[in-house]
Amino acid sequence: MAMPHKMRSLLPIFLAGVSCHALSQTPPKTVQERLGYPASARLLVIHADDLGMNHSVNRATFEALEKGWITSASILVPCPWFPEVARWAKQHPNADLGIHLALTSEWTDFRWGPVSGPSRVPSLVDADGYFPLDTPDVVQNAKIPDVEYELRSQIDRAKAAGIPITHLDMHMAGMVSSGELFGVYRKLRDAYNLPILLEPSGTHGPPAGISVPVEEIPLQRVITMEPGVAAKDWADWYKKQLAPLPPGVYQMIVHLAYDDE
Amino acid sequence: MAMPHKMRSLLPIFLAGVSCHALSQTPPKTVQERLGYPASARLLVIHADDLGMNHSVNRATFEALEKGWITSASILVPCPWFPEVARWAKQHPNADLGIHLALTSEWTDFRWGPVSGPSRVPSLVDADGYFPLDTPDVVQNAKIPDVEYELRSQIDRAKAAGIPITHLDMHMAGMVSSGELFGVYRKLRDAYNLPILLEPSGTHGPPAGISVPVEEIPLQRVITMEPGVAAKDWADWYKKQLAPLPPGVYQMIVHLAYDDE
Repeated sequence: MAMPHKMRSLLPIFLAGVSCHALSQTPPKTVQERLGYPASARLLVIHADDLGMNHSVNRATFEALEKGWITSASILVPCPWFPEVARWAKQHPNADLGIHLALTSEWTDFRWGPVSGPSRVPSLVDADGYFPLDTPDVVQNAKIPDVEYELRSQIDRAKAAGIPITHLDMHMAGMVSSGELFGVYRKLRDAYNLPILLEPSGTHGPPAGISVPVEEIPLQRVITMEPGVAAKDWADWYKKQLAPLPPGVYQMIVHLAYDDE
Repeated sequence: MAMPHKMRSLLPIFLAGVSCHALSQTPPKTVQERLGYPASARLLVIHADDLGMNHSVNRATFEALEKGWITSASILVPCPWFPEVARWAKQHPNADLGIHLALTSEWTDFRWGPVSGPSRVPSLVDADGYFPLDTPDVVQNAKIPDVEYELRSQIDRAKAAGIPITHLDMHMAGMVSSGELFGVYRKLRDAYNLPILLEPSGTHGPPAGISVPVEEIPLQRVITMEPGVAAKDWADWYKKQLAPLPPGVYQMIVHLAYDDE
């Protein structure tokens, strides 16, 4: 593996590139070139999701960021341990932190809901007042003005807490699960001038039937190990995924926690 | 210690007694007599606060209830692990569970806010959208209609989750911290026909300057060990508190958790 995996500020730089190239007549450069690397470079973002979910996730992710094992993470603002993230971020102003835009709450015994409150965004909550357990419920019930209001509230709460946000991504692929939700995702990208997680196709790709200019897509591919791989096989799994990758920019998503909660 | 400490349904029975005796001409019987015990009885409720706060509190409190080490507990409905409580309560329909009416969120790294949402009850949240850290902020800022709306929402959410509620008490003595808040506490008692935690004076007594008929006060005294007693001295501390108590009904409040979170 000869990839540089220290890529702080990669995505903001890329974003600046997007607008230039969208207007230019020459073929767009590769993302790696726009980031100042040769066209032959293979670049990898190692990214932890779900920061703020609980204390165990926070401790593991803080440690991985501090030790350089990962390069960035994104925050679940509605979760109860968000204040610990805000405090840690103040002590680590160079940490590469994004907002993990959330409209779902997937654990049955431990749940969260909209930061803007169930009565403000009633289409985003289930009968118990929480975000629904899974994304199809969001696609079916969420009203787009509620989605935009709530997600702006999540971003704004993080900004108000002093966190220098570098990017936006999404919990449980919510923002690419329908054309309307994807529209909000792009709108927030433009409104806050922040890059969004997006791959050409796949789990984190645009919804079916929606064509997106290549300049809007920062990543060649997102690499995530799904449950089912035995712990002893993890290193092999990652090697097999990463070794054959052609030049480009990739993001590996991990979910960190201590096994104690 | 010759106190019976299995007192399920003590408080609901007591409440039924309250209305009768408030109207009678004869001197009211003692609470222990109204519960069917002799006037010389010393009765003890052993009660755990803060159920629902986190998984560690839940595990410890469930175990203590199941093993009869405590007789009742009260639930922090706004906390993220409330759904686990609702699930456990369904499996333990005889558990003596109340609502720990909450208007504060005291941990700096882990916080919660109103179940009715910050925009519905704006006077109950701080600049970060959470309940304030301490009760004086509630006394200073909370508007009484917001308080009543939010606390009804907490009770209603627990009822909607199928929990058979036996009593109301309060987080961080919030409901006795001003005359107006105490008014809401009594109003909820009457509206839901549920007994409230109240002692004649002290931390869980009526606010200064407010006179309460003795028939409204179910407990002789609330006994809570405050931080500062070394673990090796806990048993002695409890013996010294309990041994000299005269006849009456007492409540010992404990805060249970595993030391792992």
